[in-house]
Amino acid sequence: MATVELEAANRSGDADTLATFKEIYNKLKEELLSDHAVEFTDESLQWIDHMVDYNVLGGKCNRGLSVIDSYKILKGVDVLNHEEMFLACTLGWCIEWLQAYLLVHDDIMDNSLTRRGKPCWFRVPQVGLIAINDGMILRCHVSRILQRHFKGKPYYVDLIDFFNEIEFKTTSGQFLDLITSHEGDKDLTKYNMKIYRLIARYKTSYYSFYLPVACALLLAGENLDNFTGVKNILVEMGTHYQIQDDYLDAFGDPEFIGKIGTDIEDYKCSWLVVQALECANEAQKRILSENYGKSDPACVARVKDLYKDLNLEEVFRGYEMNSYNKLITGIEAETNKDIQNVLKSFLFKIYKRNK
Amino acid sequence: MATVELEAANRSGDADTLATFKEIYNKLKEELLSDHAVEFTDESLQWIDHMVDYNVLGGKCNRGLSVIDSYKILKGVDVLNHEEMFLACTLGWCIEWLQAYLLVHDDIMDNSLTRRGKPCWFRVPQVGLIAINDGMILRCHVSRILQRHFKGKPYYVDLIDFFNEIEFKTTSGQFLDLITSHEGDKDLTKYNMKIYRLIARYKTSYYSFYLPVACALLLAGENLDNFTGVKNILVEMGTHYQIQDDYLDAFGDPEFIGKIGTDIEDYKCSWLVVQALECANEAQKRILSENYGKSDPACVARVKDLYKDLNLEEVFRGYEMNSYNKLITGIEAETNKDIQNVLKSFLFKIYKRNK
Repeated sequence: MATVELEAANRSGDADTLATFKEIYNKLKEELLSDHAVEFTDESLQWIDHMVDYNVLGGKCNRGLSVIDSYKILKGVDVLNHEEMFLACTLGWCIEWLQAYLLVHDDIMDNSLTRRGKPCWFRVPQVGLIAINDGMILRCHVSRILQRHFKGKPYYVDLIDFFNEIEFKTTSGQFLDLITSHEGDKDLTKYNMKIYRLIARYKTSYYSFYLPVACALLLAGENLDNFTGVKNILVEMGTHYQIQDDYLDAFGDPEFIGKIGTDIEDYKCSWLVVQALECANEAQKRILSENYGKSDPACVARVKDLYKDLNLEEVFRGYEMNSYNKLITGIEAETNKDIQNVLKSFLFKIYKRNK
Repeated sequence: MATVELEAANRSGDADTLATFKEIYNKLKEELLSDHAVEFTDESLQWIDHMVDYNVLGGKCNRGLSVIDSYKILKGVDVLNHEEMFLACTLGWCIEWLQAYLLVHDDIMDNSLTRRGKPCWFRVPQVGLIAINDGMILRCHVSRILQRHFKGKPYYVDLIDFFNEIEFKTTSGQFLDLITSHEGDKDLTKYNMKIYRLIARYKTSYYSFYLPVACALLLAGENLDNFTGVKNILVEMGTHYQIQDDYLDAFGDPEFIGKIGTDIEDYKCSWLVVQALECANEAQKRILSENYGKSDPACVARVKDLYKDLNLEEVFRGYEMNSYNKLITGIEAETNKDIQNVLKSFLFKIYKRNK
């Protein structure tokens, strides 16, 4: 975990920021534990404490740290004052907490093995399906943090409505993903780039890319209705990120990305399989339909071999460059320099990532 | 389902109310489907439509209808005007939707078989663990309904904060229940009346009893801080209700209560087992520890026989009468007559229920 966090610090370019961010995590967690504490047993408080650490920490914290970075750029300062820093970190943690909730549940539904280099929470002995309720608790924590630290701010209502809106979009995206890759209904022909992009946008882009910047904009007193251009660029960047994710699921190093990809086994509507379907001949399509969505390692290997035969690594590199150029053009068309810088800082964080 | 709904109409004493309530359900569901509709496939919209019907409908709707009843009593009228009726029904449905979310998840964690006379949602073929995400969608629906119909009302912030608070309490109660009856950690000695009451209060009372009345109070423009006495009585009534529930789990007719009880198999901290532990001799305690929490029907039968040997039916009847008398005394100590009537209408709905 330490390495991953350092890596995040380097990305955000500021180890002090990371230290403050982590300090505020401890404060927020203590406050939540005290909410639970009334009449709870020590054993149950220890469970919550450990459960929160296990699921909220251990990631790259890119989403959370982005709130701070974006807010600094919007304000045109290198250092935020104490209150500004606290509020930006707190909103950053709300995103990390929301993500923890989503991932705990997603991992159960996807029957995943590992997350962030550790067994998925529901796979921890003694946890099992209690993980469903733990996810629900993490979700409640987001509302509690927002209420405790933002109630009374002029943007409080907009903030909670916005978190709800993003949660709804993300859950709808996961729903589309699940329905599309429905186990009992194996029909590869319905996988295409249109449905793929729809899933990516809903499931990943809104919460991972738009939410952090929108939090910074709300903190800066802005009205989100005036930033639809920014939203569109961030959502497109999120799709780019999801395509990288799908690529790494099959071609990345499990040691490095912290999880063992199971998209092929899970019959996922992955960018790779959609690309493969677009350029495969009849014989290759048969290989796909015979092997995709099976947990037998030999089937998985056959799919990966086909991906290599179809040069999908190269297709991916081509997409990546193209998409980067389009995003840069879109960003440079934005009139506000601060906004341009916020968007560029995001793009540079994700471009050519390998984890 | 029709019978169950008629039964609810009789209880609420007004078939027109039920018809309006049901009409508003259709409107709310249509609005939610239109939120999803942007770019969604017909297949996925049909899933949501069916999923919402399957999980939100089919219960007795006591919680939802109680908002209307309570609001009428608080306003001292028999008939609400169009807008009042719409808002009261909408809040009623928010409670039913919240409950649907909680039950969909609880049934998975408890490995339950049936709910409201049908297979639990996750047991429906093609659903499985997608039910986790469906639950998350139902939860998002609550926020959307509140936002669509209450944003701008002076009590909007209090309303969403309150729903969040109740959700947190309920989830904490389910957590305590899960931790206490943790499968891997079978030790009956930690089951006692103190922890039992804590679980019942958190898991059931707040959302089933306090939430409907609090919604009516908020609609009536009241500040909830002025009604802690009411809260305490309702929370106590919820415990009474949970004890009935536990009793019916073992002694009720599955046909009639709409589900097959599994508290014994699930090693639940049920009121019955706590009572049994309190009055069992050493030999009987041994029977309990050897048979409680096992799915073998012979073990379940041995536990039920012991409950009969210990006269728990009679102990339950004694508790029921006692608790009723205490609640009536508490209610009559309330100075406000309208509030007294709200509380009594609740008590009469649950007293001596057999489903």
